[in-house]
Amino acid sequence: MIDRDETGPGPAPVMVLVRPQMGENIGAAARAMLNFGLGGMRVVAPRDGWPNPKAVAMASGAGRVLEGAGLFPDLGAALADCDRVYATTARSRELVKPVLSPEAAMAEARDLAAAGARGAAFLFGPERAGLENDDIARANAIVTVPVNPDFYSLNLAQCVLLLAYEWQRQQAVAPAPVIAAEFASQDDVARLGDHLEERLEAAAFFLPPAKAPMMKRNLRNMLARWTLTRTEVQTLHGIVRQLARRP
Amino acid sequence: MIDRDETGPGPAPVMVLVRPQMGENIGAAARAMLNFGLGGMRVVAPRDGWPNPKAVAMASGAGRVLEGAGLFPDLGAALADCDRVYATTARSRELVKPVLSPEAAMAEARDLAAAGARGAAFLFGPERAGLENDDIARANAIVTVPVNPDFYSLNLAQCVLLLAYEWQRQQAVAPAPVIAAEFASQDDVARLGDHLEERLEAAAFFLPPAKAPMMKRNLRNMLARWTLTRTEVQTLHGIVRQLARRP
Repeated sequence: MIDRDETGPGPAPVMVLVRPQMGENIGAAARAMLNFGLGGMRVVAPRDGWPNPKAVAMASGAGRVLEGAGLFPDLGAALADCDRVYATTARSRELVKPVLSPEAAMAEARDLAAAGARGAAFLFGPERAGLENDDIARANAIVTVPVNPDFYSLNLAQCVLLLAYEWQRQQAVAPAPVIAAEFASQDDVARLGDHLEERLEAAAFFLPPAKAPMMKRNLRNMLARWTLTRTEVQTLHGIVRQLARRP
Repeated sequence: MIDRDETGPGPAPVMVLVRPQMGENIGAAARAMLNFGLGGMRVVAPRDGWPNPKAVAMASGAGRVLEGAGLFPDLGAALADCDRVYATTARSRELVKPVLSPEAAMAEARDLAAAGARGAAFLFGPERAGLENDDIARANAIVTVPVNPDFYSLNLAQCVLLLAYEWQRQQAVAPAPVIAAEFASQDDVARLGDHLEERLEAAAFFLPPAKAPMMKRNLRNMLARWTLTRTEVQTLHGIVRQLARRP
């Protein structure tokens, strides 16, 4: 599988399909997006490989969305150049993270784009199981469609459709002024996480060993939740380095 | 075909499928509606009769929407008790009629319901050809989903889904972002700042001395900006302690 991406970060959000299963659903998602003018799709480790003939057949007139889609072996690579990441999920999670409606999330994405930020990403999980906690840990916020508590049956393409609709709907709305801080990229935050983890490993922080994976995930989740600026990432690198320095 | 209707006019709009063709699409429309709490469906002269086993199979958990659906031989009968009728159509028509977005139409329906009116109806045409001019002539207004002018591929259930979503969206007072965690008090954050500062002072971080006051202020500002939870404050205390530990 070769990485490929013609969907560099822009003012419009990219839709990231994480480990999608059925080609038909990928094609339907492409159609859903293009209805509302979204062309930036990224596909992470699709079950049936890439390109996917069933996806192409289903996409029909939206084939160009698939042709330009970025293909990535893992979610980290897919989000490397994204400033702001939203995880769509129906279930409530134990992860500490803001939970936004599609409306609120797209309003935020619109305001960030208006302020010059680039690279908002919306994550959609595999059809059957949805996003895993490790996926969600990479997001700045969770997006939940406020459905009937007694009945939930949105499929992948419908979920993409509603988010794309919200993006389009809010183009007509005047953006609110936001503080134009420069946010760190996901890549920068990931490297900070690596650095911190490495130093904490050396300091025997992750004990008992059985709890280490959970502790590490919580750490990444915490960094993601803060929506760090570039300056803060640099400051934190410095703090970690200096604290860990042995005389 | 016998008229049957358990969907008398109420504050929520009824979704009227006009001469629908595929049972699967009727079932999918029922699911789409119920996701957003709409239960009032009316079916006008369905091509394959009624009840429709394929519709029932597709509706799955939303079967009760089909069971309660009103069946009508023609559109006039279906709209007899409706106060306000909206025709969904993608194409521009020569008919002189207001053209509303889903948002504007549902806002109007909501305001009418709040004012005590009952019986708003949204019409959806047959899959292939859409509503005919005679159908549209019965409507007070046209609703057009503002799709990409170069690409339109919404199917019946998706169109119903977007309208149902808009109804639901406008019921809710814009929900504020929620965080499912307990935030740390200002006091807790201040103590964390003291701890961090003390350890960094010991590690000769605040250099040159002339810049120390500004560096300390930036540090406090950063901690304040993150809106830390209690758990995160504890975690950070642990990280700082462990990193600074001398063997």
